[in-house]
Amino acid sequence: MKIEKANRVSLVDQVVLQMEELIESGVWEVGTRLPPEMELMEQFGVSRNTLREAVRALVHSGLLQTRQGSGTSVCSSSILGAVIERRLYKSDLLETLEVRHALEREAARLAAVRRSEEDVRQLRMHMEACLQASRDQDNRAYAEADIRLHQAVANAAHNRLLIDLYHHMTDALHSSVRNLVELAPNMDVHQRIHGKLVDGIVTQNEEQAAEAVNEYMAHLKEVLTTSLEES
Amino acid sequence: MKIEKANRVSLVDQVVLQMEELIESGVWEVGTRLPPEMELMEQFGVSRNTLREAVRALVHSGLLQTRQGSGTSVCSSSILGAVIERRLYKSDLLETLEVRHALEREAARLAAVRRSEEDVRQLRMHMEACLQASRDQDNRAYAEADIRLHQAVANAAHNRLLIDLYHHMTDALHSSVRNLVELAPNMDVHQRIHGKLVDGIVTQNEEQAAEAVNEYMAHLKEVLTTSLEES
Repeated sequence: MKIEKANRVSLVDQVVLQMEELIESGVWEVGTRLPPEMELMEQFGVSRNTLREAVRALVHSGLLQTRQGSGTSVCSSSILGAVIERRLYKSDLLETLEVRHALEREAARLAAVRRSEEDVRQLRMHMEACLQASRDQDNRAYAEADIRLHQAVANAAHNRLLIDLYHHMTDALHSSVRNLVELAPNMDVHQRIHGKLVDGIVTQNEEQAAEAVNEYMAHLKEVLTTSLEES
Repeated sequence: MKIEKANRVSLVDQVVLQMEELIESGVWEVGTRLPPEMELMEQFGVSRNTLREAVRALVHSGLLQTRQGSGTSVCSSSILGAVIERRLYKSDLLETLEVRHALEREAARLAAVRRSEEDVRQLRMHMEACLQASRDQDNRAYAEADIRLHQAVANAAHNRLLIDLYHHMTDALHSSVRNLVELAPNMDVHQRIHGKLVDGIVTQNEEQAAEAVNEYMAHLKEVLTTSLEES
């Protein structure tokens, strides 16, 4: 295959990398509509063709989407997230839960060893939000607080790769998990397990933290299996 | 941003998807040089511009690479693999080992529950290859057999998402792990742990299998830490 002029390809690459950076750093958030073409051409100092090719590359890698009439917008906050999301479409929910289980159990163990005082504060805050939502019988708020609590556990593990993988899998699972929690919110079981998990991390009891994740995932699988049988 | 003619974009998309399929299914293996441009234009029934744009999209997503003078070749077997590899460059080896640990422990547990007779045969075969390499004091062969044994464990878990993530992380770790094994091959420790792992899976003893992975990873972290201190 013949090679493009080196310069042109590398210009496209440069624009792609800069746009990725804008997206992954959150300057261009998910849902952001891209500025007009003329503005971007000026900002990046490139021609229309170069710009369009860069945009198409990012559409292919799943960071941008182009819709007739509504222009181009950001649809994923990272390439890893976009690719994992795409991969999860090919997996069944049980497979995904098993992988999430593995990541979350390791996160809980590492969090028990490494959690800072700030992590402890975050964990307690999100657990309190769960309790409050439960008292208010607000299932939607409960589901949101639940997700934030589990992300705080991942953050407390202080392993950026683990945090990334976990967050992206959670994003992709987000709606399914929310549906599960909203459909069958056995909040008493949840609260007990959350208490055990957070307590295990705070008191640096690795085994207790890991055991709580096992119970949580067993409960989630049970809810999932029941809801699949019913549907 | 103005929209391209729908037809043209979707033609590029179609070529991208077909090429991805050829790569991910292994028809185009890693290292394969792409056929001449004219041949591909005919095969996919598209113009030179469409073909080139599809190729560039795949270069951006990390499946193909274009080198001045040597044409375009396949450099990764899946987008997930390429993206994980890219992400691992940003992680340190300890972070990567921790995530691999999480995935491998879950794989060992699931393998103990789900392994088939064929899985048992594969596990025994690769363990025998490790023993043989150890007897021959062939470190290179030992490292290869070691990697295949661990992949057989992942396969026996019968969770495709876990297998995918694990394989891609192993690919990216491959050279590091090989270096570790080649530098400090404490083969006696390895062999004992392999025996415990395979025996745990074969006898369907989940705890034993998970415990063996813990020992293996502890050993690997120790070797890594020592070699980092020495360097």
